[in-house]
Amino acid sequence: MHPLFRFKTVQRVSFDDLDAYKVVHNSRYFCYFERGRIEYLRNLGFITSGEEGLKKIDIAVVENYCSYRNPAFFDDLLEISLRISFIKNTSFQFQYIFERQEDSTLIACGYTNLVRVSFPQVHPIKLTREFIDEVKKFEGNNLGKMTGIPEVK
Amino acid sequence: MHPLFRFKTVQRVSFDDLDAYKVVHNSRYFCYFERGRIEYLRNLGFITSGEEGLKKIDIAVVENYCSYRNPAFFDDLLEISLRISFIKNTSFQFQYIFERQEDSTLIACGYTNLVRVSFPQVHPIKLTREFIDEVKKFEGNNLGKMTGIPEVK
Amino acid sequence: MHPLFRFKTVQRVSFDDLDAYKVVHNSRYFCYFERGRIEYLRNLGFITSGEEGLKKIDIAVVENYCSYRNPAFFDDLLEISLRISFIKNTSFQFQYIFERQEDSTLIACGYTNLVRVSFPQVHPIKLTREFIDEVKKFEGNNLGKMTGIPEVK
Amino acid sequence: MHPLFRFKTVQRVSFDDLDAYKVVHNSRYFCYFERGRIEYLRNLGFITSGEEGLKKIDIAVVENYCSYRNPAFFDDLLEISLRISFIKNTSFQFQYIFERQEDSTLIACGYTNLVRVSFPQVHPIKLTREFIDEVKKFEGNNLGKMTGIPEVK
Repeated sequence: MHPLFRFKTVQRVSFDDLDAYKVVHNSRYFCYFERGRIEYLRNLGFITSGEEGLKKIDIAVVENYCSYRNPAFFDDLLEISLRISFIKNTSFQFQYIFERQEDSTLIACGYTNLVRVSFPQVHPIKLTREFIDEVKKFEGNNLGKMTGIPEVK
Repeated sequence: MHPLFRFKTVQRVSFDDLDAYKVVHNSRYFCYFERGRIEYLRNLGFITSGEEGLKKIDIAVVENYCSYRNPAFFDDLLEISLRISFIKNTSFQFQYIFERQEDSTLIACGYTNLVRVSFPQVHPIKLTREFIDEVKKFEGNNLGKMTGIPEVK
Repeated sequence: MHPLFRFKTVQRVSFDDLDAYKVVHNSRYFCYFERGRIEYLRNLGFITSGEEGLKKIDIAVVENYCSYRNPAFFDDLLEISLRISFIKNTSFQFQYIFERQEDSTLIACGYTNLVRVSFPQVHPIKLTREFIDEVKKFEGNNLGKMTGIPEVK
Repeated sequence: MHPLFRFKTVQRVSFDDLDAYKVVHNSRYFCYFERGRIEYLRNLGFITSGEEGLKKIDIAVVENYCSYRNPAFFDDLLEISLRISFIKNTSFQFQYIFERQEDSTLIACGYTNLVRVSFPQVHPIKLTREFIDEVKKFEGNNLGKMTGIPEVK
């Protein structure tokens, strides 16, 4: 795992993730990003099931970026490393590195910028103190350090 | 687990499975069916990764049926029981029962009829002897017995 | 168009509908079903955009069935014939026939059983008088006549 | 339409594009990107149906970026402006601007970097002379001019 990352989850490529070229469709990586974020947040104690769980993640995606390095194939196990690379009053960034478990091939990397918003007016509102503190505790002094994604090695 | 079923796999409901009513979208159950079939076949030794794995599952879906009993919500763990209920020379049927792991609520049940086909002419061809034998060994004398899906209790 | 059907909509197969066998994935037909239902309801004056439009379609899918007859390919224009085949106090059924526009090949047929439900208790509630009347006016004396789907010719 | 863009296509938001917050799911924009690219290429004469059509678009997505500005809702008609912003020997870039047709609200903007590749080795290979010429003819002296996406106004 890249030294700036402290969390990893595994995603199996399912048949319905594939496109007509027999590789994971480019749009599916953004679903994997999201599933990874949920596992990261679960690990920090911020995910619960059902309606209540949904409320806790009412954080809007404002930017999404993915760099595709090598195709992922049917049934591959993908190791997704995630980190929160910075956190501010209302927003934060997730970064991702995808590797095929079997041979450590770099598959993709990317980031998502998120902002907490009020509904339905969609104005930025402050992240909770509790959330910011937990993230700072977990990421420690890696927060704010850049991986250089997408130039990740 | 229903007494006619001998195999079970678990599927986590992901955020991207939900529709605007905050429940798993009706079309997604058919993806869960397929992922379940792959786990069932893996258990019998018929799934390998990558291109080779895809070749082994070149079996066409000819009919799909789902009865939705109760909604599934964000982050639910769904227990999917699967069985092959009959197998003939070129075709066979999978049956499914979905239950929420937490409270054993019946979520859905259904079936898929599949046929092995040649490409690209799409003619039915014989299932391999090896496959038929493995299925008969695994399902034993439950083969051919009807659950009465969708009247399953 | 089959003589019992009075409504048709066209759906272009997009690249993201395809699976690794270069044909429309089996789960996508159920999205096409739903898009077709929305166009049918729009034609009857029951669809408006946005939040308000969603409220008008809070009708739960209780059963879905699809019979796949021939594969649909990239960029195909599919003609989807739809009818409401019966309507009762709280429930009704849509039937579908899919044909490739270019050569009239039968691609698939199927049905969906729907029921109007209260939220969040999910109890059946009566369809509005207005809705039942509009459907009866539109379908006329075809209501209740069976096509024999999936034996449709 | 933004002055650097010469092509526009319209996409209806379908129910299956929505997520649990009743807005178009963040991953779906990348499907809309792709459908837009196909319409753009069709307009230039580079898309045909079926297997043959797929061969003509065997161009790999290497980077995808989307900036989400305002949510898109059920049944919205989205006007997607597309341009090829640069083209080189083996690669080119599409840029996108999404606006809600009804009120011209800016919904999203983004870009995709693509490269023509050989299969299965996935090495960059030269775009055809014919393709480069058609793009240059269509985009004219806008090629190479930057919109400043995502700073587009």
